[in-house]
Amino acid sequence: MAKENQFVEQIADIETDFPQWYTDVVLKTKLVDYGPVKGTMVIRPYGYAIWENIQRELDGRFKKQGVQNAYFPLLIPMSFFTKEAEHVEGFAPEVAVVTHAGGEKLAEPLAIRPTSETIIGTMMAKWIQSYRDLPMKVNQWCNVMRWEKTTRPFLRTSEFLWQEGHTAHATAEEAEAETLTMLGVYKEFVENCLAIPVITGKKTEKERFAGAVATYTMEAMMHDGKSLQSGTSHYMGQNFAKAFDIQYLGNEGSLQHAYTTSWGVSTRLIGAVIMTHGDERGLVLPPVVAPTQCVIVPIAARKGGVIEACEALKAQLEEAGIRVTLDASDNSPGWKFNEWEMKGVPLRIELGPRDIEAGKMLLARRDTLEKSEAALENAAASVKEMLVEIQKNMLEKARAHRDNRIVYADDMAGILAAVEKGNFVKAGWCGCRACEDKVKEETAATSRVIVEGESKETCAVCGKPAKNVIIYARAY
Amino acid sequence: MAKENQFVEQIADIETDFPQWYTDVVLKTKLVDYGPVKGTMVIRPYGYAIWENIQRELDGRFKKQGVQNAYFPLLIPMSFFTKEAEHVEGFAPEVAVVTHAGGEKLAEPLAIRPTSETIIGTMMAKWIQSYRDLPMKVNQWCNVMRWEKTTRPFLRTSEFLWQEGHTAHATAEEAEAETLTMLGVYKEFVENCLAIPVITGKKTEKERFAGAVATYTMEAMMHDGKSLQSGTSHYMGQNFAKAFDIQYLGNEGSLQHAYTTSWGVSTRLIGAVIMTHGDERGLVLPPVVAPTQCVIVPIAARKGGVIEACEALKAQLEEAGIRVTLDASDNSPGWKFNEWEMKGVPLRIELGPRDIEAGKMLLARRDTLEKSEAALENAAASVKEMLVEIQKNMLEKARAHRDNRIVYADDMAGILAAVEKGNFVKAGWCGCRACEDKVKEETAATSRVIVEGESKETCAVCGKPAKNVIIYARAY
Repeated sequence: MAKENQFVEQIADIETDFPQWYTDVVLKTKLVDYGPVKGTMVIRPYGYAIWENIQRELDGRFKKQGVQNAYFPLLIPMSFFTKEAEHVEGFAPEVAVVTHAGGEKLAEPLAIRPTSETIIGTMMAKWIQSYRDLPMKVNQWCNVMRWEKTTRPFLRTSEFLWQEGHTAHATAEEAEAETLTMLGVYKEFVENCLAIPVITGKKTEKERFAGAVATYTMEAMMHDGKSLQSGTSHYMGQNFAKAFDIQYLGNEGSLQHAYTTSWGVSTRLIGAVIMTHGDERGLVLPPVVAPTQCVIVPIAARKGGVIEACEALKAQLEEAGIRVTLDASDNSPGWKFNEWEMKGVPLRIELGPRDIEAGKMLLARRDTLEKSEAALENAAASVKEMLVEIQKNMLEKARAHRDNRIVYADDMAGILAAVEKGNFVKAGWCGCRACEDKVKEETAATSRVIVEGESKETCAVCGKPAKNVIIYARAY
Repeated sequence: MAKENQFVEQIADIETDFPQWYTDVVLKTKLVDYGPVKGTMVIRPYGYAIWENIQRELDGRFKKQGVQNAYFPLLIPMSFFTKEAEHVEGFAPEVAVVTHAGGEKLAEPLAIRPTSETIIGTMMAKWIQSYRDLPMKVNQWCNVMRWEKTTRPFLRTSEFLWQEGHTAHATAEEAEAETLTMLGVYKEFVENCLAIPVITGKKTEKERFAGAVATYTMEAMMHDGKSLQSGTSHYMGQNFAKAFDIQYLGNEGSLQHAYTTSWGVSTRLIGAVIMTHGDERGLVLPPVVAPTQCVIVPIAARKGGVIEACEALKAQLEEAGIRVTLDASDNSPGWKFNEWEMKGVPLRIELGPRDIEAGKMLLARRDTLEKSEAALENAAASVKEMLVEIQKNMLEKARAHRDNRIVYADDMAGILAAVEKGNFVKAGWCGCRACEDKVKEETAATSRVIVEGESKETCAVCGKPAKNVIIYARAY
């Protein structure tokens, strides 16, 4: 039995050492590895397959919104960043710079994109002539680079993969509506495909994207109660249109600056999946994005007919569009159970001689660890139904976990006590930066999002009348 | 009518100024635009959609071969390149170098990947322990950078998109077989999806990938008779395994170096499509990868019921999985015909009041410019059939064009005369580098590929006994 327990022993305890649990899980399940350059990651096939599933789901949603994919250059002249004052301040410190190429020193140093507003703005200025060219909605799936001091796979690395959508509109109203539409697209995707409940809303000025008029965020609570910013949607007003000269001839004949937006999610979402659903045995992956949705483990595999029955079952499930793996390796069933549990496969099917004789199979759910039986006849329908049920349960479970950890506080001591316990804290806020700073200083919690539709009388920090309710939390 | 002809007037004549025709077509059909940094391109939505179709087709084929996608870091320590002597010689001159990041000078300069053998080799060395880990087959879809002096959109730009597959095997035989299998996958894809016939075979030592034991290529003939190297597959032997220490414990217990391969195709394939099929009116896109396979142009659109009938037809075609656009803009039908012809949409459907009354539609093929009628009933079936026919015809037409331009030569004068006329020239070759160099010097043609299964008595350059037959051609 020692061999059987080896997998759990490899992983640090999720409750007492969550950071080490995370590192153990991402490495041992082969989601990711460290790259040779500090702060970089290699996304291994098991991790990349999750990203492919995320891409497929999101890309379809973007296209339904009339967004078209394109590709813009990696390298951006450093001078572009200086055109929008806040933008350069926000990104210049993190930029990686190419100074030499083709054996020569470059006349102007080039930045590796940390985000592409500046280059896409430059191109939009060229492409947009009249109101007929609007709205223009483009998206790119690409790599970006932000040189970070402290890094962790998926959560914060110098290079990561993401999509960045950029749109230009004739009016402020239309651009603001687009910003919120895309935030809604993200929320629906994250909740329904990743089974992660998110709180959406506006960021404070302090936490806003460099150069934006308004930044909307989705914040998700991780297993340890910390928040993970899982995606953002920015309304730029005319800031970038003015900096990059994106003008259009209105139908009344006058030149106007466009209104722009941008919105993005990244491979960070994989980190969110790991830290929302994982447990003491390792990963728990939501069926919609799991590379393998269902693993078949033969029992007494050497007995006549077992492997054949497993293969027939596999073919039947694949035919129905289920992503299935048959583990016909030499390892013992117990070893396989533990390995596939660590890898977070949503559903395990055990199939042995007695099951085959009885015309049934055993289903073991990863989310609840419950086992049940189902007929081999119509196996695909049963499996599909079970996967839907698992997906639904994972969202509910995560929502319950989060909702239990949202508390209110009326003063700094209350905020501190609550975040120490791993809570999201709702508190009144006067609207001034100093109070936000003070919370960060004294509790290491930051303002995550302005809560819609709630009010408080006083600011929990200074006691002055509150303008908004804020969620404070420690964050990744 | 002047307005109607404007599109053709915008494009240089394909026969007399092919380079300008190419530039006109790629810009005016909005496939691509120039980026702000010299030598870079922006792939616009119409061009990127072709790339997405190429990706989807190829990716499915790779996965059937057991290849898994992954993602490796963009930045590679410069020292990695020096580990394989030929490799550094081949790529160092083209590398873009990051020297500063995060506001500081880096201890070691980092190269932006021109190709990823070195970093993938480094990771494989870590991941491969025993023969059980082999074969290992990974692929990544990514951007790469090679600083080029002379650039042209899709054909040669400092940054481009590609896929690079990398595999490691236990034996030389298996790795060599993999190299040829992937070359075969490429050939089948390029011929069946891009309708481009290719000649596959080995490169000479001079033209081989830096660090490879053998490079296999597919060469396609463009409209002007020049060759475009459209994809390559390399057998590395143990060169990279030794340089990066990719070793495995064999089942007999001894440590062995693995045998590796790599293979890639890029956005260059879009250039191949443009230059193989284009004509005096602009693009001609093969249905399998055309962003819009079929455009519906309403005739007398303001007459009652026309737009509704067009929309119903569009819905019916979409339902059948056809990528269809309905051009309901204010432009005249003639304008629309010319615009969509320039954009290379394989099939145009014209639908007016009389057609609707008669229960039929007019089909205009882009490849032959022929028109025919078909019943509105079962429109999807007729359109699908026609798209298959167009795809097939385009390949046949391209093959006939190429086969007519493959000639033999027995001496340098013959080679020169033939390449001047835009031919592929088959000639005997003694096997020595000096003769290849001489052909290049005197004719500007390079050796494209060693012809399988043909022999000649003497080398066309030096007259010594020939070892192989070579195809010489001018090339992109």
